[in-house]
Amino acid sequence: MAHLLSTSCSLNIPSCRKPSFQQLNQGLIGLPTSFTVKTSKSPIQTVILSAQRSQRCHTVYATATPFTPTQSRSGLHQSSNDPSKAKRVMIIGGDGYCGWATALHLSNKGYEVAIVDSLIRRLFDHQLGLDSLTPIASIHDRLRCWKSLTGKNIELYIGDICDFEFLSESFKSFEPDAVVHFGEQRSAPYSMIDRSRAVFTQHNNVIGTLNVLFAMKEFRQECHLVKLGTMGEYGTPNIDIEEGYITINHNGRTDTLPYPKQASSFYHLSKVHDSHNIAFTCKAWGIRATDLNQGVVYGVRTDETAMHEELCNRLDYDGVFGTALNRFCVQAAVGHPLTVYGKGGQTRGYLDIRDTVQCVELAIANPAQPGEFRVFNQFTEQFSVNQLAALVTKAGEKLGLDVKTISVPNPRVEAEEHYYNAKHTKLIELGLQPHILSDSLLDSLLNFAIQFKDRVDSKQIMPSVSWRKIGTKPKTVAA
Amino acid sequence: MAHLLSTSCSLNIPSCRKPSFQQLNQGLIGLPTSFTVKTSKSPIQTVILSAQRSQRCHTVYATATPFTPTQSRSGLHQSSNDPSKAKRVMIIGGDGYCGWATALHLSNKGYEVAIVDSLIRRLFDHQLGLDSLTPIASIHDRLRCWKSLTGKNIELYIGDICDFEFLSESFKSFEPDAVVHFGEQRSAPYSMIDRSRAVFTQHNNVIGTLNVLFAMKEFRQECHLVKLGTMGEYGTPNIDIEEGYITINHNGRTDTLPYPKQASSFYHLSKVHDSHNIAFTCKAWGIRATDLNQGVVYGVRTDETAMHEELCNRLDYDGVFGTALNRFCVQAAVGHPLTVYGKGGQTRGYLDIRDTVQCVELAIANPAQPGEFRVFNQFTEQFSVNQLAALVTKAGEKLGLDVKTISVPNPRVEAEEHYYNAKHTKLIELGLQPHILSDSLLDSLLNFAIQFKDRVDSKQIMPSVSWRKIGTKPKTVAA
Repeated sequence: MAHLLSTSCSLNIPSCRKPSFQQLNQGLIGLPTSFTVKTSKSPIQTVILSAQRSQRCHTVYATATPFTPTQSRSGLHQSSNDPSKAKRVMIIGGDGYCGWATALHLSNKGYEVAIVDSLIRRLFDHQLGLDSLTPIASIHDRLRCWKSLTGKNIELYIGDICDFEFLSESFKSFEPDAVVHFGEQRSAPYSMIDRSRAVFTQHNNVIGTLNVLFAMKEFRQECHLVKLGTMGEYGTPNIDIEEGYITINHNGRTDTLPYPKQASSFYHLSKVHDSHNIAFTCKAWGIRATDLNQGVVYGVRTDETAMHEELCNRLDYDGVFGTALNRFCVQAAVGHPLTVYGKGGQTRGYLDIRDTVQCVELAIANPAQPGEFRVFNQFTEQFSVNQLAALVTKAGEKLGLDVKTISVPNPRVEAEEHYYNAKHTKLIELGLQPHILSDSLLDSLLNFAIQFKDRVDSKQIMPSVSWRKIGTKPKTVAA
Repeated sequence: MAHLLSTSCSLNIPSCRKPSFQQLNQGLIGLPTSFTVKTSKSPIQTVILSAQRSQRCHTVYATATPFTPTQSRSGLHQSSNDPSKAKRVMIIGGDGYCGWATALHLSNKGYEVAIVDSLIRRLFDHQLGLDSLTPIASIHDRLRCWKSLTGKNIELYIGDICDFEFLSESFKSFEPDAVVHFGEQRSAPYSMIDRSRAVFTQHNNVIGTLNVLFAMKEFRQECHLVKLGTMGEYGTPNIDIEEGYITINHNGRTDTLPYPKQASSFYHLSKVHDSHNIAFTCKAWGIRATDLNQGVVYGVRTDETAMHEELCNRLDYDGVFGTALNRFCVQAAVGHPLTVYGKGGQTRGYLDIRDTVQCVELAIANPAQPGEFRVFNQFTEQFSVNQLAALVTKAGEKLGLDVKTISVPNPRVEAEEHYYNAKHTKLIELGLQPHILSDSLLDSLLNFAIQFKDRVDSKQIMPSVSWRKIGTKPKTVAA
């Protein structure tokens, strides 16, 4: 188990001092601008942050007892069986791309939200020399800003869910009714950089999820797990992709079985492993779980992250963490040819990040039954890479950009021309109202990319990770 | 990465001093009786043991350079492309139940064999207060005895395959043409004892196998992986179980996909994870692999382990590591009622350990093609638990034993009455000649159990691990 180092530091953080993106009346005065972090070697590691108005100095305690100076803790405890109380939702990985947008959305909708995050996604950027296109505030500033704008508190537990002692304390302290688990290494290329990152990805994702399942069993048996999977678990079979299960007629008999998985990176495989582990615990322990097999997410703004620049979400355009449509928009903005891998016939499900937050909310509001392992395919439209390139080219030209496309050798091992027809009706049936990819969204995303194009490091655009050339020696990044 | 402790010790080991089970002419004189182990904190950890006649003191060096005092090392190096040379087979987990029998069998058949083992299976016994029914010699004595009896050398690499540096050195030193991977935590109940053992099982098995795949890619691209999976990966679907893949007709289209998996313990799940990881590396890197989905193994003696009591294999009868038929025979021998879990209709594939070694040899002799992920269902007959109990009862009565059967509450989560029809033709097609479960085998196994019945600790017979009650706190064993 990793212990926090014995250390103490003070950070002076300018907060919420710039004007909001939208006109807002919320007062921005009195936010804390000094911040003290205390950690210790003691095994008690829960770190709680509660944003607080009218207090200039804010303290994060390394303690199992949450520090919430402005509210009586006992008044916050709510029974999951009492429908008059807001549901308590723990968002693991709530500082990341999808997690941050989801945390704000659920908080805005009246859920009691806690973020659990080790912040390791920010470390990956430091280590690989990458950065978000958009400048992003620290998680501490983000939460203070949110509190300042909306009056809503989001609790913060900083630690690693692979450390079960930390996770236990977080569960016992927050008492979630639902856990949304985004807390995984989520990049296929990252998992294919070298052996140690492949091992890290599988260990971190599989063991982290096992720990979440054990914590639910031990501390919150009624809690609903909403787990982010990926459409990539299915691969590209030559038959229709169903939602989690397929009914098979074979030699005169019939059964409905888990849909066969053919993942094609150590990252995608880690999600396959998670799905099998979760399905087993639903059966053996009565865990209630929803596996959201998410497609490729695009976009950056949601209603909440657009409220203030300190709430701005990250946008990755690099070859490791960037996803297809977002990367293409940034490439178009800086005049880099769109990088189509191989033939470009690779077809996948896509969705707007505004639909990610909507889908998670629908899953939480309509929980799985005890013992149920429910799988939703979470995307709204299918596109091939060539289709995306054509759409971005057209939208770019309307803005006066000269958009070129090049085919680069495919760094992945995947079919470049294939059948693809994946079902995605279950979330629609629950009420999802999709944001279809539109000219206006593409305009908005391109304009966003143009706004921040001076921050683009063009060296990070081309793919640098090869599925076939991955080696056993740790890859280091030269200055 | 785990470093060996800086330590040095001398062990005085009486060796091969008792008469052989069979009449053998091999001289037993001059075996080493003193044994020095040197380890260090240096990152070079390969530990090589080569048995040597006519030498009283034997040394194991912690060094990357193998120590083979009686033979020129260069003379042993063989090209995998030279058919006139014996194949070099690395057996990971070669000190365990199936691994030991396989190592001796392949050595006897003329393969050049190395055992890679951390010996942790022996540690599990110490920690849980368990022991093999049969007294087993140390791995060092086992190998010295084998050399003494046959003149054949088996190299020994002691270390943990989760330590990639150790595994790399073993690969570079031994240069295997085939790797047989038994080196996993292999008990479903062990994986369900508590959270830490669940996590250990999945980490150890998944990361160990990832490391083997990376070592093959880096150091021995042509090497053939023979990986022990389990029939338990399939669960108990209501349709026929095929060998690894199933052709599915769905909505007017057809594809052949990996057979859907429904494993029912963290151990079985770890094997499912391995299968997916290996399949991916076959596709992405051209690894050649055979996944042997093995049924429940019974029996203890093979031609080689029967040659001398110091070569005797382990036989587990306890509720954690014991398997159904072996447990029943020991229960009958000591007058304990046969412990049928629940209704006893649980049906599985079974095989004699003499067929395990035969199947592995067939897989090695007929390797998979580069890029091929081949799956064989490795068992010879199906039985329900009730059928096994009836067979043992009948065989016991012939020997004058009074055999009773009791139904105990099922500690597992599994169907107790179900359809089960699993295909197992591929190994037959390669030439497997099955040892069908016979009266004479049951007599022999029962007599073996009677011979050692004074070693039985009856407290270990009943199941002690519950699938539903597994907790997060480490389970300790009271004295």
